[in-house]
Amino acid sequence: MQFELTDEFLERLRKAIDTQDGAAVTAQLENLHSPDIADVFNKLEIEEAKFVYKQLHEQVATDVLVELEDDVREKFLASLTSKEIAEQFIDNMDSDDAADVIAELPDKVQDEVLKHIEDSEQASDIVELLNYDEHTAGGLMATELVRVHINSDSLECVREIRRQSDNVGHIYTIYVVDDNERLVGLLSLKKLVISPTRSKVADIYEPKIISVKTNTPDEEVADIMDKYNLVVVPVVDGLGRLVGRITIDDIVDVRREEETEDVQKMAAMEALDEPYMSTPFLRMIKKRAGWLVIIFIGETLTATAMVFFQDDISKLVTLALFIPLIISSGGNSGSQASTLIIRALALGEITIKDWWKIVRKEISTGLTIGLILGLIGFIRVALWQYFTPIYGEHWLLIALTIGSALVGVVGWGTLMGSLLPLFLKRIGLDPAVSSAPLVATLVDVTGIIIYFSVAMLFLKGVLL
Amino acid sequence: MQFELTDEFLERLRKAIDTQDGAAVTAQLENLHSPDIADVFNKLEIEEAKFVYKQLHEQVATDVLVELEDDVREKFLASLTSKEIAEQFIDNMDSDDAADVIAELPDKVQDEVLKHIEDSEQASDIVELLNYDEHTAGGLMATELVRVHINSDSLECVREIRRQSDNVGHIYTIYVVDDNERLVGLLSLKKLVISPTRSKVADIYEPKIISVKTNTPDEEVADIMDKYNLVVVPVVDGLGRLVGRITIDDIVDVRREEETEDVQKMAAMEALDEPYMSTPFLRMIKKRAGWLVIIFIGETLTATAMVFFQDDISKLVTLALFIPLIISSGGNSGSQASTLIIRALALGEITIKDWWKIVRKEISTGLTIGLILGLIGFIRVALWQYFTPIYGEHWLLIALTIGSALVGVVGWGTLMGSLLPLFLKRIGLDPAVSSAPLVATLVDVTGIIIYFSVAMLFLKGVLL
Repeated sequence: MQFELTDEFLERLRKAIDTQDGAAVTAQLENLHSPDIADVFNKLEIEEAKFVYKQLHEQVATDVLVELEDDVREKFLASLTSKEIAEQFIDNMDSDDAADVIAELPDKVQDEVLKHIEDSEQASDIVELLNYDEHTAGGLMATELVRVHINSDSLECVREIRRQSDNVGHIYTIYVVDDNERLVGLLSLKKLVISPTRSKVADIYEPKIISVKTNTPDEEVADIMDKYNLVVVPVVDGLGRLVGRITIDDIVDVRREEETEDVQKMAAMEALDEPYMSTPFLRMIKKRAGWLVIIFIGETLTATAMVFFQDDISKLVTLALFIPLIISSGGNSGSQASTLIIRALALGEITIKDWWKIVRKEISTGLTIGLILGLIGFIRVALWQYFTPIYGEHWLLIALTIGSALVGVVGWGTLMGSLLPLFLKRIGLDPAVSSAPLVATLVDVTGIIIYFSVAMLFLKGVLL
Repeated sequence: MQFELTDEFLERLRKAIDTQDGAAVTAQLENLHSPDIADVFNKLEIEEAKFVYKQLHEQVATDVLVELEDDVREKFLASLTSKEIAEQFIDNMDSDDAADVIAELPDKVQDEVLKHIEDSEQASDIVELLNYDEHTAGGLMATELVRVHINSDSLECVREIRRQSDNVGHIYTIYVVDDNERLVGLLSLKKLVISPTRSKVADIYEPKIISVKTNTPDEEVADIMDKYNLVVVPVVDGLGRLVGRITIDDIVDVRREEETEDVQKMAAMEALDEPYMSTPFLRMIKKRAGWLVIIFIGETLTATAMVFFQDDISKLVTLALFIPLIISSGGNSGSQASTLIIRALALGEITIKDWWKIVRKEISTGLTIGLILGLIGFIRVALWQYFTPIYGEHWLLIALTIGSALVGVVGWGTLMGSLLPLFLKRIGLDPAVSSAPLVATLVDVTGIIIYFSVAMLFLKGVLL
C-alpha cells in the first residue's frame, strides 16, 4: 500500500527525463502522494527535478515543494525567478507554509517574491505572518479558514465552505464570529451535515471552545492541543478576534524540536536549533564547548581532592588502579537516575512534591545496584589474586575496600543523580540541564572522597 | 481562556460535595471541558469523586474517565460494580478506549463487564480488539466509523453520518467500500458538503488512499501518519477489508513512548515500559542493573590497563591525580557526540551513508574542543605551580603532558562517540544503545592508554 523508492524506479524515471518524455514521467508519478514525490525529488539533480516538476499539476507541485528537505528546496528555489516562485508556488500555498518558505529565502528575493504574489490579500497576510515570532502561535498559524457570522444559517456555511474550499486543504471546523469578528464558538462539519437545511448557526454551534492567542508560546499550544485532543485550534488576537488556526501537523514539528532540545541538553550541550549537518563549525563548537568547559573546570576538583590522598597512593599504587572503575560506576548510575527523573518530570509522571518518595525509591535502588556491582568488584579482585597474586597478602582487605566503596559510591551517585533534576526544577531551571556529564562530574569528586575514606577504614595501619 | 485548577476552586467544590449540593457542583463544572474535570478528579478522594461523577452528564462522565490518570481510574473503577462500569461508561465509549479501559481491569472483572455491555455488537468488537497486540495498528484502532458503499449517493452518506453520529465523536472522513467490504477510497466531509445533493459517491470520492494493516507496528503507523500529514488513517485486514481507523491522538501516545524508550536506552537502561512511580522495586533493578553490570565489567579493563603503568604511577604519583580529569573529559565529549548523532539519525537528518562527512566534522570539532580543554588544563597546572609549587622543577613538562593528553583523549572520544551509533545501526542494532555510560567506558579504557603514552613521550628519562 505504501510506496517504496527503489533504484529501479529512479533509473526508469531518469531514462524518461533524459529522453524528455513528459508523458512517461507523468505516468510514473501519477499514483504517488506528494510526500512520496518529494522523496523522489530529494534524490534528483536540480535540472532533472525542474523537468519533473513541470509535468506535475500545479497544486501537486506546490505540495511537493512544502515536503522537500530544506536544503533541496533551497537549491531548487534558487534556480527559479522570483516571478516563478510567486506564481507557481506561493499562490497555491496555505499562508503558513508560504510564510515559512519565504522566510527561508534571501532577504532580497523575499521582497521580490512578495511583489509578484497576485492575490494582494494573501500577500498582506504573509507579510503579517512573517512579523510573528516563529515560536509563538502567530508564527505557526495559517490565516485560511472558514468563518461565519453567528446570525447566519447552515446554507450560508455551505456557501462559505465552497468559497474557501480552494484555499483551505482540509476543513474540519467552521468558526463562528460576532459583529466585531470576535470568536464566539465553532460548528463541526459533522453537525452541519446532520442538521436540517436552513438551521440557524446560533442554534447548532458549540460555544464552549478552546483557543490560543497569537503570542502563546508554541510549546504551550502543543500542550493545549494535546490535553484537549484537538486536531486544529483557532488563534485570536488581543481583542479576541479570530485571526488564524493551527493544525496538528505543525505541532508535530514543535514537539520534535522540544524533544531534540531536551536530549541535547541532557548530553551537556546547548540546543543546536538547526539540523546537525547544516550547523556551521564555529556555531557547533560554541554550542558544544560551553558546558564541557564548565564541567571540565568542575572536574579539576578531582585532582584537588586527590592531592590529599597522594601519600596513600604512593604507599599503595593499587589504590590508583581502581579509581576510574569506582568513580565511573558512581557517575553511570547517577546519570541513569538523573535521566529517568528528567523524563518522568517531562511526562508529568512525577512532580517535585514527590521528592521524598523518589529519595526512598532511589536510595534502595542505588544501594541494591551498588551491592551487585560491589560484589562483582570483590570477585574481580579475588579472581585475579587467585591467578596472578598481584595484590599481596592483604588482598582480602583490598577486595573489601573496592566492594564497599562501590556500594557507597553507587548509592550516593544514584541519590545525587535523582535529586539534581528535582533541585534544578525547584529553583526554576530546566531539569534537563542535569546532563549525564554534569551528574558524573559531581559524583566523581565526591566518589573519590568516599573511595579513599573507605580505604582508610579498611587499610589504615595495614597498608596505608 | 484555559482553565486553571486553583486551591480556591477545589475548596469551593469540596464544600459543595460536603453539603451534598449537586446543583452547586454542576454549576461549578458546567463550563469546564472533560480534560479539566479529569484534572479536578485526580485531586479528589474516591468518595468525593463518586458524588461528583453522579452529577455529570453520562457522556461527559465517560470522557472524564478516559482522561483520568491510570491509578486514579483504577481506584475509581474498583469502587464500582461490573454492571455500573458496563452501563455507565463502556456503553458510551469508543471501542478503542473501551478496550483499553477493560484491558486494565482484573481478569475476572473483565469478563463480568463484557457480559453487562448492552450492545452485543459493541461487546464483540471490544473482545476482538482485546486480541490484537497493543503495539500494532489493530491494538490502536477504533471500530466506529462511517462507511458507505461505492454505489451509494451523497444522501446515503448523510443518512449514515446521522446513524453513526452518536457513536463517532469526531467525523473527518467517510470511507468508501466495495461489495466485499474492501476499502476503495474516501470522501472528505468538505467534499460531501460542497457537492450537489444526490451526487454519486463514485463520482466524488478519492481513490488514492493511504491505509495500514491490523498488524502494522504502531511506530510505523505513526511514521505513515506523520509523512502523509494524516489526522486519521483507516485500518484494513489481510483481505483489504475496512476494519477500523486510528486517530492522531493515539499516535501522540505512541510517539511519547518511543521517545521515552530512546531516552532511557541512552541512559544505559532497558526501557521501563511503565510510569516511574508504578514500577515495582525488582523490575526497576532488573531494568537498570543490566547495562550497568555490563559496562562495569567493561570498565574493569581500566584497572587492567593501568597495571601496565603502575611503575610510572609509583615514580610520579602526580600522574594519578589527573586520571579522573582526563578520562572523564574524553567520556563527556564522546557521550555528547554520540547523543547528537543518535538524535540526528532518529530525525532522519543523517544516514549511515554520511559517515565520512560525520567523521570529518567530528574530528575537527573534537580536536578543537580538545585544544580548548587542553589549554585550560595547561593553565590549571601552571597556575597551581605558581601559587603552591607542588609539581617541582619539571612542572612545564607535566603541564604539557596534561594539555596534550586532553587534546588526544577528547579528539579520540568525540570520534568514537560519533562512530558508535553509526556502527550499531550498520549492524542492525538500535543506535540509542550507545548510551552515555557505554561510550564513556569505551573512551575511559583507551583514554588511559593515550594519557600514559603521552606521559612517556614527554617525561621518559626525566621523571619516569
